[in-house]
Amino acid sequence: MKIKVAQFGLGPIGIETVKLAATKPWLEIVGGIDIDPQKVGKSLGELTGIKSLSKAKVYSSFGELLKKTKPACVLHTSVSRMPQAAPQLEPIIKAGVSVVSSCEELLFPQLRAPAIAKKLDALCKKHKSRVLGTGVNPGFVMDTLAICLTGVCRSVESIEIERVVDASLRRLPLQKKIGSGMQPAEFRRLFREGKMGHVGLVESLALVAHALGWKIGKINETCEPMIAPQKIKTQFLEVPKGLTCGIHHRAEASAGKHKLTLDLKMYLDAKDPRDAVKIIGDPPIDAVLRGGVHGDRATVAALVNAVPNVLRAQPGLLLMTDVPIPHAG
Amino acid sequence: MKIKVAQFGLGPIGIETVKLAATKPWLEIVGGIDIDPQKVGKSLGELTGIKSLSKAKVYSSFGELLKKTKPACVLHTSVSRMPQAAPQLEPIIKAGVSVVSSCEELLFPQLRAPAIAKKLDALCKKHKSRVLGTGVNPGFVMDTLAICLTGVCRSVESIEIERVVDASLRRLPLQKKIGSGMQPAEFRRLFREGKMGHVGLVESLALVAHALGWKIGKINETCEPMIAPQKIKTQFLEVPKGLTCGIHHRAEASAGKHKLTLDLKMYLDAKDPRDAVKIIGDPPIDAVLRGGVHGDRATVAALVNAVPNVLRAQPGLLLMTDVPIPHAG
Repeated sequence: MKIKVAQFGLGPIGIETVKLAATKPWLEIVGGIDIDPQKVGKSLGELTGIKSLSKAKVYSSFGELLKKTKPACVLHTSVSRMPQAAPQLEPIIKAGVSVVSSCEELLFPQLRAPAIAKKLDALCKKHKSRVLGTGVNPGFVMDTLAICLTGVCRSVESIEIERVVDASLRRLPLQKKIGSGMQPAEFRRLFREGKMGHVGLVESLALVAHALGWKIGKINETCEPMIAPQKIKTQFLEVPKGLTCGIHHRAEASAGKHKLTLDLKMYLDAKDPRDAVKIIGDPPIDAVLRGGVHGDRATVAALVNAVPNVLRAQPGLLLMTDVPIPHAG
Repeated sequence: MKIKVAQFGLGPIGIETVKLAATKPWLEIVGGIDIDPQKVGKSLGELTGIKSLSKAKVYSSFGELLKKTKPACVLHTSVSRMPQAAPQLEPIIKAGVSVVSSCEELLFPQLRAPAIAKKLDALCKKHKSRVLGTGVNPGFVMDTLAICLTGVCRSVESIEIERVVDASLRRLPLQKKIGSGMQPAEFRRLFREGKMGHVGLVESLALVAHALGWKIGKINETCEPMIAPQKIKTQFLEVPKGLTCGIHHRAEASAGKHKLTLDLKMYLDAKDPRDAVKIIGDPPIDAVLRGGVHGDRATVAALVNAVPNVLRAQPGLLLMTDVPIPHAG
């Protein structure tokens, strides 16, 4: 039997999620949800160009969709932060419907929003809903992958996780998001105001620590601009020498003798793009995904692939460590 | 509360498993099981040198152990094949006790022993027992790791999994098992008789295919001797030029346009030891664990680390794809 899903949020990532979900014979897309009046009332067929979705309408809220059809799971790709996500998730949970979300803070909501997390978890258990935050980063390369690799370790002393993304190969919004062309001083000011940097990095760190049972202290976080060593030209923009061409975001924490380091560089013309996990342990593990995992392509895959696993898990606000190992399907 | 475990099989791997389990504060070792009359009646403290295990006795069968104490989970490291494993597992399952086993065929018992698998699964469900076969290979590097990496793929066309083990760094039994010093003709004869080659390679392949929903045809298997290009000397033995210095075991299968290849080389003085997974898909993944994962050290870790995950899963004869992602604890 096909799993009925609805798509919450019809921005670029939401549309990509629908397009991928439409290729999976084990999923049935029953509708979409977006607040944009330009989209409400249209069909997902019109928004995606996929004819088989002509009967899947876009509604202005989950409540409106629920009057017409009840999905088993909602794919949620609208916001990054828990305070914004919670009011969107609550009606879904109360309907006993499960959620797979790209909301970055939902990867480990206990970190920044423990009260909301507790409330949603209780609500999930009461209404038999399962809610999971996942994706590629956060969700896989800097957390789940590292956790999975420790599965063959007798003991783990420290873990160093590194991701280098060549932003030149990515779409314009990402090239802008990393501050391309910005004055370095402006970049640093925006980071101090919480408006620059990779949302989810500290959640990845907290998830790895949680999986290993490490009681970490304060997470030390730095985010510095990468500086263009010469003029850089991409398909979309140009960065003069000396201005920002990307981010170098780092998070570190300790638990006794254990140390956890996450180092993320996303910049234009990055050298040797890769995802790497180094485990100092017994046995040691030195893993590299050469070329790295393509974020945009892979994030929607992580969401869609998670649906069957989430539905198999116990009700609750779930972590990646609560569901079976992810896999393509 | 600590999880009570018992160790079934007190050969070298069993003893290593007990020693590792004894370091985990969340486990309590309540006893051991072995048919060796030299071991029965002794304590695990005597057999391992760990004083805290002086009250954990060795029994001649699970039934004898059960008269004194009831573990939640049995760590089972005695045999490689399902026909030998099944009679050992049945009494444990009937007692409602769960099992984590290194039995290679148990990784995907539906492949070679579908009738036994069906029977044990029904028994598990009846008695609320969970049984999982795992380890490093099979169990992780040539199956679970590859499966987990597909979790960020929109689609997977083919997968090539490669493991190269430098047997010079391993213990004597392994150096012998791979045919070191054997005439190549003798090696080939033993493989044809099913007495040479890596038990579990085809199970790894079948597990990956199962996870991806690929209905594979016949598994093509080859196993050739690696030939010493010159005299090789290890800590334990010498191989003259021209004789066998290891195995090259390969398994391949197709499902329509999909192809799955597992290539395992274990030989003396191996060049560039590694575990590699190449996914031809969208996005592609090119993963390498440089130096590879040390088999002996890691196998017992995979077993011990699996215990909490197995106890969280639904009753049944489980696959690695049925339990949460493995991690150290």
